[in-house]
Amino acid sequence: MTDRTSKTDPGKFFEDFELGQEILHAVPRTVTDGDVALYNALTGSRFALQSSDVFAMDNDFDAAPVDDLLVFHLVFGRTVPDISLNAVANLGYAEGRFETPIDTGDTLFATSTVIGLKENSDGETGIVWVRTVGENQIKQLAVEFVRWVMVKKRDPASKAPETVIPDLAEAVAPERLFIPEESDFTEYEFAVAGSPHTWEDYALGEKIDHVDGTTVEDAEHQMAVRLYQNTARVHVNRHRARESRFSKRVVYGGHVISMARALSANGLANAVRIAAINAGRHVAPTFGGDTLYAWSEVLDKAELPGRVDVGGLRLRTVALKDREASGFPYKNADGSYDPSVVLDFDYWVLMPREM
Amino acid sequence: MTDRTSKTDPGKFFEDFELGQEILHAVPRTVTDGDVALYNALTGSRFALQSSDVFAMDNDFDAAPVDDLLVFHLVFGRTVPDISLNAVANLGYAEGRFETPIDTGDTLFATSTVIGLKENSDGETGIVWVRTVGENQIKQLAVEFVRWVMVKKRDPASKAPETVIPDLAEAVAPERLFIPEESDFTEYEFAVAGSPHTWEDYALGEKIDHVDGTTVEDAEHQMAVRLYQNTARVHVNRHRARESRFSKRVVYGGHVISMARALSANGLANAVRIAAINAGRHVAPTFGGDTLYAWSEVLDKAELPGRVDVGGLRLRTVALKDREASGFPYKNADGSYDPSVVLDFDYWVLMPREM
Amino acid sequence: MTDRTSKTDPGKFFEDFELGQEILHAVPRTVTDGDVALYNALTGSRFALQSSDVFAMDNDFDAAPVDDLLVFHLVFGRTVPDISLNAVANLGYAEGRFETPIDTGDTLFATSTVIGLKENSDGETGIVWVRTVGENQIKQLAVEFVRWVMVKKRDPASKAPETVIPDLAEAVAPERLFIPEESDFTEYEFAVAGSPHTWEDYALGEKIDHVDGTTVEDAEHQMAVRLYQNTARVHVNRHRARESRFSKRVVYGGHVISMARALSANGLANAVRIAAINAGRHVAPTFGGDTLYAWSEVLDKAELPGRVDVGGLRLRTVALKDREASGFPYKNADGSYDPSVVLDFDYWVLMPREM
Repeated sequence: MTDRTSKTDPGKFFEDFELGQEILHAVPRTVTDGDVALYNALTGSRFALQSSDVFAMDNDFDAAPVDDLLVFHLVFGRTVPDISLNAVANLGYAEGRFETPIDTGDTLFATSTVIGLKENSDGETGIVWVRTVGENQIKQLAVEFVRWVMVKKRDPASKAPETVIPDLAEAVAPERLFIPEESDFTEYEFAVAGSPHTWEDYALGEKIDHVDGTTVEDAEHQMAVRLYQNTARVHVNRHRARESRFSKRVVYGGHVISMARALSANGLANAVRIAAINAGRHVAPTFGGDTLYAWSEVLDKAELPGRVDVGGLRLRTVALKDREASGFPYKNADGSYDPSVVLDFDYWVLMPREM
Repeated sequence: MTDRTSKTDPGKFFEDFELGQEILHAVPRTVTDGDVALYNALTGSRFALQSSDVFAMDNDFDAAPVDDLLVFHLVFGRTVPDISLNAVANLGYAEGRFETPIDTGDTLFATSTVIGLKENSDGETGIVWVRTVGENQIKQLAVEFVRWVMVKKRDPASKAPETVIPDLAEAVAPERLFIPEESDFTEYEFAVAGSPHTWEDYALGEKIDHVDGTTVEDAEHQMAVRLYQNTARVHVNRHRARESRFSKRVVYGGHVISMARALSANGLANAVRIAAINAGRHVAPTFGGDTLYAWSEVLDKAELPGRVDVGGLRLRTVALKDREASGFPYKNADGSYDPSVVLDFDYWVLMPREM
Repeated sequence: MTDRTSKTDPGKFFEDFELGQEILHAVPRTVTDGDVALYNALTGSRFALQSSDVFAMDNDFDAAPVDDLLVFHLVFGRTVPDISLNAVANLGYAEGRFETPIDTGDTLFATSTVIGLKENSDGETGIVWVRTVGENQIKQLAVEFVRWVMVKKRDPASKAPETVIPDLAEAVAPERLFIPEESDFTEYEFAVAGSPHTWEDYALGEKIDHVDGTTVEDAEHQMAVRLYQNTARVHVNRHRARESRFSKRVVYGGHVISMARALSANGLANAVRIAAINAGRHVAPTFGGDTLYAWSEVLDKAELPGRVDVGGLRLRTVALKDREASGFPYKNADGSYDPSVVLDFDYWVLMPREM
């Protein structure tokens, strides 16, 4: 018999985390065609590999794989009740890597390990670093990532833990980018995917204006977080949001990443997979009714070990709200962000090469 | 050749019902993964048995069963054109029972029998009681329930039928709760489902604040009723609603039940199935933009014949709008409901036991 | 290596089209149960053949076919980046025909041929006629249609092409209506589909008020065009729309067709398939918040070669906004449309006959 006074889960507070702690997240999740259709309807995603079983099979996949970010959001969603229900802020991501593609019918399981702790000087909050792993039903790694969040203390008087700040890679090394073994892009049809541009065509420092804009409605981002079973309290509760800092619901930052990735199809249509997340910062909140635009910059290029048919492109994609991307708004001279910037996202994609 | 003047179906009026009448409802409905994904995105449901094929198979199901309330809404949706298109009010439910779990790919058929009639003293409306049965494609009972609605008369001058008020059980008896034969909860993993609490942990009279709140947007509840193919006129017609009593669209009451059930996962994560609906009252209307909260009370507990791995919990779940559930708002001293209450729902769930 | 300065696709301008040009549209699309569920949730469609695998199999289909208009929208969506990204207006449709039914799991491919060109006298725009063909993965024709759009010139000074206006049929001839070979409607159950009315019951000139109204929200039509991967810029960009002619987002006209078709189930429940699109005009724009009503008129009836179980009905369906369909609002004495009319759609449906 467990404690009858606490049937509901209040979420973890800073004191509840300890270094090395392993957390098995609840509610494994089977991914279905329905999830994929909703993801497309909510984000506008239209990459050929994820849209067409035939196109995927032509590149030696069994079927159209599930969008990497949908996998990310579903795994992330599992972690919220244990990691970030009492979070004040989602501070960053690092060392994100995607491995085995997920097919519809697969089931995702999520676990996290606490790898860093630091109490803030205010004594009321602390920072928790966790490494989260998402696996399929046969324990193949689908996605892993580190994130750190600022979490409230239950009791400001409680003793601070020893400070441990994990040593995180500034970016995932190209040799750690995973390419699905079954894949073969030697016959990849660029025109069918919507762009003639191969990996060779992209130059270091090149910037791409993704041109299109897309508006997010409250109903849409609410449906997104519910689909991901993400229970964070700031996204779907209008009543409580009225008394919050912003006085309205905040769009889940991951949904902004997905919308920016979907917009990037115009200019990066052959970015077949996200291979890694190097860093990500939600610079400012997005709200229902905002229109997002995006631009990208090529930060790095890498040939990949053992593969001549596909290369890695390291990109920074910046999402803006209610401002077009022409001119590539980013940072001001003093290092602060342009007020239109909502997302600064640094990641690796795979892109087929000229054969 | 049928009458050319009436291609459209005006729905049944009170005079069109007679005792014992059997109504075969149109448009059988195959349930798909897409329906399930939308249901989750619209309600926030996140129970493990319905979310994961692997979890379901670990408890000897073939696959994750379709949420009981989605089955209910789909069956209910079929009945609307025949039963409640001209209804003034949905007055109540009784003797609801869920039997064979529905899997995606199954097709639902609905039929109803008129079991009670009573003309109102105003001579303009009457009450119709129907027992509705939803079956799958091999005629296994998926769900049955009694509901009664107030329906307009076509002609106030028409003669009243003999009054017959059916004798309905105040609650479904525990021995009538159906447990899927294939199921085996002896290895049920409470932690994986998101709560350590077994059937034994819940006490008679215990109240649970489900804490979270969730907002319903017009786009969301419109999508819900369209998904259920529920053609009731008050939910999706803003133009006509402007001249209605509330001057706006009303959320389908069943969607409120689903949102309350989804909220109850925080506190009742191991309520693996709804086994029966004893009574339900839509106390006040819910509108787009309202935020729902919920709390539950344990009304009864029952061991179930032939099963040591699972028990029955009778619950009252109360849904509130724009008010948090702390303090468990319910009825005033005079028996009237607190103005925040929108739903008073009395039902049985199945919950695995401590093994 | 292609041009680095143009990674994003600006869309084609009038000068980019030439007579006889064949365009392979990018991003083949696998249709899934998820697409179907969303389509139903967004439109309210509820025809029995498309809703029930069992009903479909009883009429000798393998499974419930995908709604014809969903197939149309998915094929249309593919064409937008190549045909209408710089379109000023969608002027009309003709010679639309549906052949092989699409099942979930099938993949759609789209190609178009330029069949007409005419520069406008303003020198700034021109009209392009294209015939679009949508095929499944084994090259069976799913849908074909002609549409013409007014497209901007890149440079007003560029030379006008020779004017070629294609000779288009005023309506698809009945003998060109395709009936799925596998289908057999001799055992078609009218009551199960929701209406007793057979093909014989409909008279030339008969008008049907579909009675119900349904409101479209911005979140809904945004989800629809994203699902169809239709990248036209006027539907989902609130920021840019503020400076447009209407100062708000415009609902994709195809979504209005789908909503009108869904409303028509009340009166035309046995219109099992759309067989052809003769003509279609988006008379006025529809916006989020508008409520649509619809009425239909029987324009023609045709027995179909080799089939006694099913006939063709040529219909005009008119969609109205914020006005009920009673009185059948259509055109004024001067030939202009009633201000409530948003769609004037002329098409053939298949309907089972009295056996």
